[in-house]
Amino acid sequence: MAAQQAPLQGKRIAFLATDGVEEIEYTQPRSAAEQAGAQVELISNKPGSIQAMQQDINKGATINVDQLVTEADPADYDALVLPGGAVNPDRLRQDPDAVAFVLGFFAEAKPVAAICHGPWTLVEADVVEGRTLTSYPSLRTDIVNAGGIWVDAEVSIDSGLVTSRSPSDLPAFCASMVEEIAEGRHVGQLMSV
Amino acid sequence: MAAQQAPLQGKRIAFLATDGVEEIEYTQPRSAAEQAGAQVELISNKPGSIQAMQQDINKGATINVDQLVTEADPADYDALVLPGGAVNPDRLRQDPDAVAFVLGFFAEAKPVAAICHGPWTLVEADVVEGRTLTSYPSLRTDIVNAGGIWVDAEVSIDSGLVTSRSPSDLPAFCASMVEEIAEGRHVGQLMSV
Repeated sequence: MAAQQAPLQGKRIAFLATDGVEEIEYTQPRSAAEQAGAQVELISNKPGSIQAMQQDINKGATINVDQLVTEADPADYDALVLPGGAVNPDRLRQDPDAVAFVLGFFAEAKPVAAICHGPWTLVEADVVEGRTLTSYPSLRTDIVNAGGIWVDAEVSIDSGLVTSRSPSDLPAFCASMVEEIAEGRHVGQLMSV
Repeated sequence: MAAQQAPLQGKRIAFLATDGVEEIEYTQPRSAAEQAGAQVELISNKPGSIQAMQQDINKGATINVDQLVTEADPADYDALVLPGGAVNPDRLRQDPDAVAFVLGFFAEAKPVAAICHGPWTLVEADVVEGRTLTSYPSLRTDIVNAGGIWVDAEVSIDSGLVTSRSPSDLPAFCASMVEEIAEGRHVGQLMSV
């Protein structure tokens, strides 16, 4: 495989999610990362498996957890991905270990990609002030109140911070996520800490 | 029935909710209001019925909608109740008519009771600044960022604004809701507009 076909070869990516994750916002970015050559692990605040949802109110697949967030270290990963689903970040943001894990990627200037309701965990980690991002439209007010600059775009890229609005933005989200992670560390991420 | 047993006799109360409402946070306050003599209507942003959830990820009952929010007027009601369920306010807050309906109760100094995730719609209506309230713990940061004074209590009562944290607070929530609605208008509600 040529280098440009496996831009994430050798990269290890943490997906952080829990019960309520929107299924397609986990499966599609995970496939995109793996097809680009990355090794992906699902980190969660609960052991065993998590319950994915479809359009927030219909149950989807159950997904195996690879590592507990209490045992995971941002230093061991090259990037973080935060899928959406309303209930997923609603539960993650109540867990201080999950919030500290997210903050660690910013402190190490590593790329972070979040889609839909995923950015609520960024609000909880207090990393959106002065940063440009998008999200599911219901989060706009919470992001603006946290000091973020909210834009209405299929994908927003701000120095290693990749965000999208909803499942219909997944193609643009996945492409930009792969691109930013391939580039490696972004000093702009330090603005958040 | 003695007056003190039907303290809400003659009162008309709007419950505002949509798909994703936490079932028990709708059924218990509704029963409490009706047992206190009130007439209750479910107002929604969708016609027909809504899908209630249990603990956010299990489907519960479907509940008949009495009136569309586009056709409802705060002037016709004595009070507003906002049940929780993460997905319910997440959808309501995206609807300008629902947000305007909520704001209308504050503008008319009428009591508003919100539990669990319900206060997200208060954040969207921009009515929490300077007010004391509680919520499901996941909303604390969003409420503080919106200028609210967040307290950790089974029920918070601030001049006609009644709030609670979760289903386990329902007994205290229902009792305080009935009491505040029985008292009628509270001029303190105008602080929010």
